[in-house]
Amino acid sequence: MQSKTNFRDVFYVSDGTAITSETLGHAVLGQFPIEVSQVTLPFVETVERAQYVKNQINQKFIETGEKPLVFFSIVLPEIKAIIAQANANLYDVLSVLVEPLTRDLQLEPAPKLHRSHSINKDSDSYQKRIAAIEYTLAHDDGVSLNNLEQADIILLGVSRCGKTPTCLYLAMQFGVRAVNYPFIEDDMARLKLPKEIEPYRFKTFGLTIDTERLMAIRHERYANSEYSSENQCGKELNKVESLFRREAIPYLNTTTLSVEEISTRLMEVSGLKRTLW
Amino acid sequence: MQSKTNFRDVFYVSDGTAITSETLGHAVLGQFPIEVSQVTLPFVETVERAQYVKNQINQKFIETGEKPLVFFSIVLPEIKAIIAQANANLYDVLSVLVEPLTRDLQLEPAPKLHRSHSINKDSDSYQKRIAAIEYTLAHDDGVSLNNLEQADIILLGVSRCGKTPTCLYLAMQFGVRAVNYPFIEDDMARLKLPKEIEPYRFKTFGLTIDTERLMAIRHERYANSEYSSENQCGKELNKVESLFRREAIPYLNTTTLSVEEISTRLMEVSGLKRTLW
Repeated sequence: MQSKTNFRDVFYVSDGTAITSETLGHAVLGQFPIEVSQVTLPFVETVERAQYVKNQINQKFIETGEKPLVFFSIVLPEIKAIIAQANANLYDVLSVLVEPLTRDLQLEPAPKLHRSHSINKDSDSYQKRIAAIEYTLAHDDGVSLNNLEQADIILLGVSRCGKTPTCLYLAMQFGVRAVNYPFIEDDMARLKLPKEIEPYRFKTFGLTIDTERLMAIRHERYANSEYSSENQCGKELNKVESLFRREAIPYLNTTTLSVEEISTRLMEVSGLKRTLW
Repeated sequence: MQSKTNFRDVFYVSDGTAITSETLGHAVLGQFPIEVSQVTLPFVETVERAQYVKNQINQKFIETGEKPLVFFSIVLPEIKAIIAQANANLYDVLSVLVEPLTRDLQLEPAPKLHRSHSINKDSDSYQKRIAAIEYTLAHDDGVSLNNLEQADIILLGVSRCGKTPTCLYLAMQFGVRAVNYPFIEDDMARLKLPKEIEPYRFKTFGLTIDTERLMAIRHERYANSEYSSENQCGKELNKVESLFRREAIPYLNTTTLSVEEISTRLMEVSGLKRTLW
């Protein structure tokens, strides 16, 4: 029976994107030694859809004999009332904090639908975000080293050490204009900062990675190549790390870090401000 | 005094990325009619840094005379104990749900640091995510129409209607392989699906946008151009929407939607499964 009790069906339900429910539910479940099967049901905005979702949850209870876990973030009272009747363990991710805040702020909540991940498209911050994504795409992988005066950060490192996903995450999540430049074979002989980057060295940040990990990543792309060899990977990493040290460029080893961790760590080190949408 | 009580300083504090605290705090604050100034302090992993953060919060209280709002997600008990002493209104975003879950699951939590936004790099889901980002970048803006059999979704629409940010968000957040293809002027004369896309029409999804909004976005890029004119924008949108209807391609108007809303709505309509990291 142990294996059964340690497995649960999980639903994330919202009248918005369900991103808040997902993020919090996922984090909370990570604190428990259980396996889960997760379903996300966003935009539950009508009574009909709410009834349908309630039935879907109830059906799962009938099938499994275990109450599903339902994390929900619902502003519309009539929708919330229906979901609250499901045969499930229900967790209202917003209300648990809205109540103490109401007391502490001595203010009544003024709930608005979709406040969290929706936007005023005329707002500066939304424009800033879209512009950051475009800038970052145009400056991916050394494609362009123009307009570096507009960059918030310039990532340096060998090919396949995590620069591109990090830059895109920085742009998407935080509205950061991120440039990335890969040191390639031709740079290795006498490694130095490209002259276009030199005037903006104060914006540079290095990424590095363990040799074994780099070999594995490169091997997936080009199996058994010189590019993925221990010799080549080790040599490139040595040279690039020497450059970082010689030029006093702050750097981070990405081997055990997720895109989120790399991004938030280097925002922190470089003092960039996080924008929330 | 009204204006003073409706402004608060907010801190998001975590021994991880602080993404969970930010997401939940931001959503909860969106329910109240207040203005905030927000600071995020991730990776508070040492006693020294925790003391520093506590002092920073206390200093804000001294400066403003108002208790800052502190949303925190901290696993390490010795760090949590220090932050809990700050002169602030404190909200433990995880514990409020960990407690009822402990009761409902009849399981003790087994907290691990950084479980939420960290990764096992050898895991399939992490590889899937990075591969999705690469695939999506390689298929941005019609650059390549190869390997469409690997696509999860193919977005169609006129230039500047929101395809690229949506595709990148889908890849980054959900590990979706997203292709996007812009209909350009040359396509307009006799508009049809490109022959490379035809076999994969069941994966297509259209984006459209109001004429005024498209004009404004294009005007920012090329002011007073034919490209941003009412005549041109209106014509392109008419033609493309006719195509969507004629070919029975599901489509969405992005005018009032954020990247998150567009992405989650089209995941929902197209039945794609959300992967959580």
